Amino acid sequence: MELMLRNQEQILSKIATNDGHGENSAFFDGWKAYDTDPYHPTHNPNGVIQMGLAENQLSLDLVEEWVQKNQKASICTAEGANQFKDIAIYQDYHGLPQFKNAVARFMERVRGNRVRFDPDRVVMSGGATGAQETLAFCLADPGDALLVPTPYYPANDRDLTWRTRVQLVPVICESSNDFKITRDGLETAYKKAQEANIKVKGLLLNNPSNPLGTVLEREALAEALSFINEKKIHLICDEIYSATVFDEPGFVSIAEVVQEYPDCNLDLIHIVYSLSKDLGFPGFRVGIIYSYNDVVVNCARKMSSFGLVSTQTQYLLARMLSDEVFVDRFLAESSRRLASRHGLLSQGLAQMGIGSLKSSAGLYCWMDLRRLLKGPTFEAELELWRVVINDVKINVSPGASFHSSEPGWFRVCFANMDDDTMQVALTRIRKLVIQSISPEANAPRKQCRRSKLEISLSFRRLDEIMMTPHKMSPHSPMSSPLVRART
Amino acid sequence: MELMLRNQEQILSKIATNDGHGENSAFFDGWKAYDTDPYHPTHNPNGVIQMGLAENQLSLDLVEEWVQKNQKASICTAEGANQFKDIAIYQDYHGLPQFKNAVARFMERVRGNRVRFDPDRVVMSGGATGAQETLAFCLADPGDALLVPTPYYPANDRDLTWRTRVQLVPVICESSNDFKITRDGLETAYKKAQEANIKVKGLLLNNPSNPLGTVLEREALAEALSFINEKKIHLICDEIYSATVFDEPGFVSIAEVVQEYPDCNLDLIHIVYSLSKDLGFPGFRVGIIYSYNDVVVNCARKMSSFGLVSTQTQYLLARMLSDEVFVDRFLAESSRRLASRHGLLSQGLAQMGIGSLKSSAGLYCWMDLRRLLKGPTFEAELELWRVVINDVKINVSPGASFHSSEPGWFRVCFANMDDDTMQVALTRIRKLVIQSISPEANAPRKQCRRSKLEISLSFRRLDEIMMTPHKMSPHSPMSSPLVRART
Repeated sequence: MELMLRNQEQILSKIATNDGHGENSAFFDGWKAYDTDPYHPTHNPNGVIQMGLAENQLSLDLVEEWVQKNQKASICTAEGANQFKDIAIYQDYHGLPQFKNAVARFMERVRGNRVRFDPDRVVMSGGATGAQETLAFCLADPGDALLVPTPYYPANDRDLTWRTRVQLVPVICESSNDFKITRDGLETAYKKAQEANIKVKGLLLNNPSNPLGTVLEREALAEALSFINEKKIHLICDEIYSATVFDEPGFVSIAEVVQEYPDCNLDLIHIVYSLSKDLGFPGFRVGIIYSYNDVVVNCARKMSSFGLVSTQTQYLLARMLSDEVFVDRFLAESSRRLASRHGLLSQGLAQMGIGSLKSSAGLYCWMDLRRLLKGPTFEAELELWRVVINDVKINVSPGASFHSSEPGWFRVCFANMDDDTMQVALTRIRKLVIQSISPEANAPRKQCRRSKLEISLSFRRLDEIMMTPHKMSPHSPMSSPLVRART
Repeated sequence: MELMLRNQEQILSKIATNDGHGENSAFFDGWKAYDTDPYHPTHNPNGVIQMGLAENQLSLDLVEEWVQKNQKASICTAEGANQFKDIAIYQDYHGLPQFKNAVARFMERVRGNRVRFDPDRVVMSGGATGAQETLAFCLADPGDALLVPTPYYPANDRDLTWRTRVQLVPVICESSNDFKITRDGLETAYKKAQEANIKVKGLLLNNPSNPLGTVLEREALAEALSFINEKKIHLICDEIYSATVFDEPGFVSIAEVVQEYPDCNLDLIHIVYSLSKDLGFPGFRVGIIYSYNDVVVNCARKMSSFGLVSTQTQYLLARMLSDEVFVDRFLAESSRRLASRHGLLSQGLAQMGIGSLKSSAGLYCWMDLRRLLKGPTFEAELELWRVVINDVKINVSPGASFHSSEPGWFRVCFANMDDDTMQVALTRIRKLVIQSISPEANAPRKQCRRSKLEISLSFRRLDEIMMTPHKMSPHSPMSSPLVRART
C-alpha cells in the first residue's frame, strides 16, 4: 500500500495520500484485531472481545418491540406503503417537518424539558461525523484552529481537520484534577496557539465526555461561556452522549446555561447531536447540528446535501420519537441498564484493584492501568496495550489514541455486549492482573512476558485483593482505595 | 441576510460567507418560485408547474407493489424485525455485504451485463452529491481543476468545488455540433487552463447528459479515454442517468470501453452512480463511487463516514435489487414509460414549432427557445425565463444556469408529474408561443409584454402550425423542421 501511495502521489490529492484520516492509530488497530478474530461464546471462545466500541445495545429490545407494534412507521408495510412514493422522492434538505419536530422535542426531553429547541434550527448531517465536519467548514478556514480538551475522541481529528484543513489545539487536562477543564488550561492553550500564529476560531466541548464518562458541571460550562465570549470565538458542544447519563451528577446542556447568561453572544453557540449513542442507532446515520447562529444554520443546511438522513429513516424516527410514552420509558430503562452494567464493570475492576475515573455517563469506563506500566511513557502504554489485545484478547483503547496527556489510561466500553461476555472479559482482565503481579504462577511459556510487564514496586499483590470480594455500591466505586485514578 | 453576513465575516469561515454553494442562480430561484406557489389541479390550478426537477416518478407504483409483497425487506415488520438490532447498530463503512453485492449486480444489469463490477470497489456516499465531492477531495488539491463539458448540471459547482476549493474549467460545446464533445474542445480547455497556470487533474463526463438527454457514443468515450491517458489526468464518469435511456442510441458505460483498451491506465478511471434517478429514490440518499484505483477506493471509503447510507435503507435495497425478476421488469417498464412521456413533450413542443435537442435518455428535454429571445444574449434569456416563470407559471431551467455557451436553451423536466399536469403545462407553453407571435390576439393587459418578447422575423406564425397537428413518431421529432435545435 505504501509503495502504491508513493507512486500515486502525483496523480492524487494530498488528502488522499497523507494520513489525515488518523486510522493508523492504535485505536483503529484494535478494531482490526477484533475484526480478524472476533469472540463468540461457542464458535470462537478464545477470540478478541470488543471493548473498543462505544455502542449502546442494552435497550434495543424495547425499540424492536416498538417497531413491531407500529408498522405504520415503515413505508414498506401494508399499513405504511401508501407513503412510499412521497417519502422516497422527498429530498428537501430541510428534512421532513415531522422529523425535525420530533428531533427537537426529543432533544428537549433528554434535557429534562428545561430548554426549548426550535425545529427550524435543526440541521441534518451524516452522523455526528458529518455534523462536526460541517461546523468546522462553517466556522474556520484552513489553518485556523479549534481548542479541544484532552483526552478526546480520536476521530475528532478525522471529522474536524482531515478535509477542512482546520487544526485542533489540545487543552491539557490531567488526572490530578479529575481531568477537569480549567480556565487556566484554556488560556494556556489559546496563548500557545497565538504565539504560534494560529488563529483560534472556537472551543469544542464534549459533554458527557468520551472517553471520560464525566459530565461538565454548570460552573464549568459557565466558565467556558465566559472564555469564548471574551475571545469572541465559537463554542461547539458535542452532546451526543446526553441520554447515557445514569447517575449523579446529571447532565446540563449548554442550551440551559446560555439561558442564564443573556449577555452571551448566541451567534457563537452550536450543539452537535446524534441518535447513534443515546438510542443506539449508529447505522441510521442521524447527525444533528443545532446552531443559534442564523448564517450557520443556513450554510450548514446547504452543506447537509452531502449527508442527508435517508427519508425512510426520517419517517420511521419521526413516528418513534413522537411517541412520548415510548420515549420516556426508553430513556428511563436505558439509563437503569447502563447504570447496572457500569456498576458490574467498575466494581469488577475495583475488586481486582484496578481504578477507573468516577463517572456518571457514557458507554465506557476510563480505566487506570498506570501501575501496570513498565514506566510512565506512551511506549510503555502501547506495550501494555499489545499484551492486552494479543494475549488477554480484549480490545480496549489506549489513552494515547485519545491524546491523553498521561500514559496508562484505557477506555473500556461496556454497553456493546451481553452480561455473559462482560463476565468473560472481567475474568480475562483478572488473569492479566494476576499474571502481572506473580508471573511465576503461570505456565513457563508465559514467563517470557515478565519483562514486558514489569510491575511497579508499590503495587499490591492483587491475588490477595481478589480473594476478598469488596462490598460496593455499583455507583460508589470510591470504596476501594485503588479504584479511582486520583488515589 | 446580507448585512448579517457582513457582520459575521470575521467570525465565520470564507466558505460560510461566500456564495460558493451556487444557490443564488436562476436554477434555484425557479425552485423557490415553485415552492411558494405550487400548482395543484384543484387546490391551486394557477400555481407554478414544476418542470425544473429531474425526478423519476413514473414507475414508483411498481416499487410500491414490490415492498408490499416483500415485507421481510423492512426491519420494521413482524417478518423483518428480528434483524432490527443487527441493522441499526451496523456502521461499518464498507456497507452491508448484501447491499454492495446487490448494487454491483444492479449496475451490471443496467449496462446489459456486458461488464462486471467488483462489489469490493463499491463505495457508498451521500447521494451523487457526496460521491462527486468525495472524488474531488481524493483527486485534486485546492486550486486544481477538472474539465467539464458544457452545458452541465448546475450543482456540479457546489458538489465539486465549494468545500474542496477545486475549480471547474468548461469545455465549450455548441449546438452547431449537437453539443458533442470534441478532441479540439478538450485540448482548447486544457491549454487555456495551463496558460492560466491551473493544474488540470481530470475530466468529468456526464453520460447520459444532464441537461442534454444525450448519451456519449463509444467513439466519444474512446476519444476521451485517449485524451486523459495522454495527459495523465483522471476521468470521472457520472453515469447516474444510465437506466433512463429509452431509445437508440443506447447507453455505453465507460466500464465497457476500458475493457477494449488494455493500455488505458485504470488508476485514472472512476464512475459515479446513484439510485436517485434510475430508480427514483432521491430521498434515500444512495450515492456510489466505483473506482478502479485501489488508493481512491480506500480513501473514498474512509471519507464515506461523512455520508453513509442508512443501514435501514441498505437492507431494503439489498433485497429489492437482488430480486432480478423485479429489476428486469422495472427497468423495461420504466424505459417504456419514459419514452412515452418524452414523446408527449417533444411532440407537443414540435407541434408548436418549438425545437428540442434529439435525445434518447434522461428525465428532461433541452428546449430551444432561441427564436423567442429579444437578442442572442443571456440577459434576454433571463428576461424570457422570468416571463415563463412569472406569467406562464412553469419552472423550467435556463441554459445559463447550466453554463451553456449559447443563450436561449432551457431544460424542461417531464418525469416528475402525471399526464394531466403535462397537458396543462403544454397548454401553457402553447399560450406563450401564440402570445409571443401575435400579442394582439391577447387581452390588452398582456400587450405590454410585446417588447419583452420581440420575435425573430424568421419565426413562423405558430398559431398556424398549431392548427395543423403533425403526425410524428414520439421518437422521431425530426419530422418537423423546427423541432430540432440545429435546423
